[in-house]
Amino acid sequence: RIDAERLWASIMETAAIGATEKGGIRRLTLTDLDRAVRDWFVARCTEAGCSISVDELGNIAARRPGRDNSLPPIAIGSHLDTQPTGGKFDGVIGVLAGLEVLRTLNDAGYQTHAPIEVIDWTNEEGSRFAPAMLASGVFAGAFDRDYAYSRTDREGLSFGAELERIGYRGDEICGARRLGAFFELHIEQGPILEAEGKTIGIVTGVQGMRWYEVTVTGMECHAGSTPMHLRADALVAAARMIGAVQAVGLAHAPDAVATVGLVEVRPNSRNVIPGEVFFTIDLRHPDDAVLAAMEAALRERLEAAAREDGVAMALTRIWDSPSVHFDAGCIEAVEDAARTLGFGARRMVSGAGHDAAYIARVAPTTMVFVPCEKGISHNEAEKSEPGDIAAGADVLLRAVLATDER
Amino acid sequence: RIDAERLWASIMETAAIGATEKGGIRRLTLTDLDRAVRDWFVARCTEAGCSISVDELGNIAARRPGRDNSLPPIAIGSHLDTQPTGGKFDGVIGVLAGLEVLRTLNDAGYQTHAPIEVIDWTNEEGSRFAPAMLASGVFAGAFDRDYAYSRTDREGLSFGAELERIGYRGDEICGARRLGAFFELHIEQGPILEAEGKTIGIVTGVQGMRWYEVTVTGMECHAGSTPMHLRADALVAAARMIGAVQAVGLAHAPDAVATVGLVEVRPNSRNVIPGEVFFTIDLRHPDDAVLAAMEAALRERLEAAAREDGVAMALTRIWDSPSVHFDAGCIEAVEDAARTLGFGARRMVSGAGHDAAYIARVAPTTMVFVPCEKGISHNEAEKSEPGDIAAGADVLLRAVLATDER
Ligand SMILES: NC(=O)NCCC(=O)O
Ligand SMILES: NC(=O)NCCC(=O)O
Repeated sequence: RIDAERLWASIMETAAIGATEKGGIRRLTLTDLDRAVRDWFVARCTEAGCSISVDELGNIAARRPGRDNSLPPIAIGSHLDTQPTGGKFDGVIGVLAGLEVLRTLNDAGYQTHAPIEVIDWTNEEGSRFAPAMLASGVFAGAFDRDYAYSRTDREGLSFGAELERIGYRGDEICGARRLGAFFELHIEQGPILEAEGKTIGIVTGVQGMRWYEVTVTGMECHAGSTPMHLRADALVAAARMIGAVQAVGLAHAPDAVATVGLVEVRPNSRNVIPGEVFFTIDLRHPDDAVLAAMEAALRERLEAAAREDGVAMALTRIWDSPSVHFDAGCIEAVEDAARTLGFGARRMVSGAGHDAAYIARVAPTTMVFVPCEKGISHNEAEKSEPGDIAAGADVLLRAVLATDER
Repeated sequence: RIDAERLWASIMETAAIGATEKGGIRRLTLTDLDRAVRDWFVARCTEAGCSISVDELGNIAARRPGRDNSLPPIAIGSHLDTQPTGGKFDGVIGVLAGLEVLRTLNDAGYQTHAPIEVIDWTNEEGSRFAPAMLASGVFAGAFDRDYAYSRTDREGLSFGAELERIGYRGDEICGARRLGAFFELHIEQGPILEAEGKTIGIVTGVQGMRWYEVTVTGMECHAGSTPMHLRADALVAAARMIGAVQAVGLAHAPDAVATVGLVEVRPNSRNVIPGEVFFTIDLRHPDDAVLAAMEAALRERLEAAAREDGVAMALTRIWDSPSVHFDAGCIEAVEDAARTLGFGARRMVSGAGHDAAYIARVAPTTMVFVPCEKGISHNEAEKSEPGDIAAGADVLLRAVLATDER
């Protein structure tokens, strides 16, 4: 059994790096704060006797040797980056539970067959650099390295330059190593476990998701002297489109979701009719065929809105992450662990994307979910119980050891 | 007659200060670029033999003495600040035509009865610090000095601190001096003069305008794992409200205009349901009673939208500038000047706000408009013909001298 207090203390220690006034974390990927938490992680893993390797995407792997170090490692991991107004648990608990598993094995003097690795994946959130899960995606061959390097944030800074700047561009080729299996502990980020009074979510897969960028171009003009009928107001058109995105989500609810999360208005001045609006769309559904139908409906509605408002509109799909089905063996290992430990558990599909979704392409993979209050995540108020997190870490430990035994 | 080439050269010289790639100007008030153009203006006026005074709001007055310097000066002026993506003419020509009038009087060795002043008013645009016409408003007693000082830009920097920083916080009490009359030359910023083939707009007044700030508060949550029906999406609600603002404008068209120019989404991350949206509203109508009715309709519609989307909404009116009627004597002076010079002219009401709208409260005031291409303004593509600007400056000169004769 893991040490619940030690794990909680680690979570609270890292929560201080980028802590916000409202009790959350603002620790965007490849910022100085990301460097700080990476340094912390490397130091703790080194203290725990691990060797550290950093690949060319900045993914950090801390390795505890096994009896047979020619075996591919069993890996545990998640991410330490956060949303701009993120919580203390999203991602973080998956990495720190991995550290706690290593510490527990050390305390017990337990030797595994295969090496065990704890991995911090770079840029999982996708908030600073789109798309999400970028570096686990490169690891799994979904993107190539230079594509990742060339991604820019909204200020125009590139992933490659920022990775270099914080000193975490390693030498190892990303994806060159094989993993024997991959387990990721994460908060559910949804309300089901809490509502059903269950402690463990056994994650069978991740729904499909697609990201889009839209640029609406109208005509910048004076807000006081330009009559209504002579306007080509990019914002009025974008507002109609935002309504259309919601309608596409509602048309396929309850399984579908559709969100506009980021908007930039230009020139963004009180007395200027907006000439250009940039916004993003996030569409998700567990069934890829439905997702494709949602995209078709979206395109049609956005084109209609542009025509109606006399503006130009460019819609680009920048990311397509199809639905993922996790490995049956790993899922059973988690299910067995939860049963043995006596935790209420249920199978579920993840609505959120996770590094595990990409790693599943190259290694047997699954995830363990624990409840979070009211399902609230990507919010500074995000909250999980120490006991639930400890339960998840215990399940992780057991599932890893069972996999190692096989 | 003024020297058209010299005036055009001055316009092009100042257009280099903050020039944009697209041929416009980005010279927001109280920035380093604003300081640079102020320094240029002070240097040129000093060369022209003027004494300079700067008041506590940073308004710069360059004075050419008259025969009787106990008479209140006849003032000419406008503003040198621009929109973020502004044109080369908006405001600028009103100040530089004033300088050109002084140079012309110097060349002719003409002595006026009253002193003549050219004034650059601070923060006319209202883009960096709301509301617009802030410093002419203080001069006219519409706002008090400390209110102006306390206004902040979207980064939280205050007007007072920025004025101090660029070194243009003067000692003179703002509004302490009397003006004998005030004339402002400006581009029309609307399509009427061009459409009718007229050169001079004789401005009889300015329509009423009101500015509002709206904050919509929903619930930040994960875009992937939060079902549509459990959301309180501040952006979906704001989008509906932006449509409602347009509807309020259209309901009172063609005289009414209603615009949302500035939007800020929080946290503005692709996979986070927006928790808060801040946006601004600009409503205008020549009839203050209609403007009041528009405000009532706006409030009702925004409240309904908030209810429908399950979000909170706070609507605050931050500015009310009632419709303005200019001085009959000044209007006649402009009309006579245009007739004498043989320019096609027509009376008109300004859709845009101007410093003259406030100065009209404390001095006989009017404005002279000249055409701009297709009425496009608050746009880097803003364009006016040298000949039209020169015509406006000649009308200005004549109207000023006629007023001085009386
Ligand atoms: N788990 C998580 O919050 N991932 C971010 C990627 C996404 O699902 O949008
Ligand atoms: N003339 C002009 O563009 N003024 C800005 C103030 C306004 O009308 O919004």
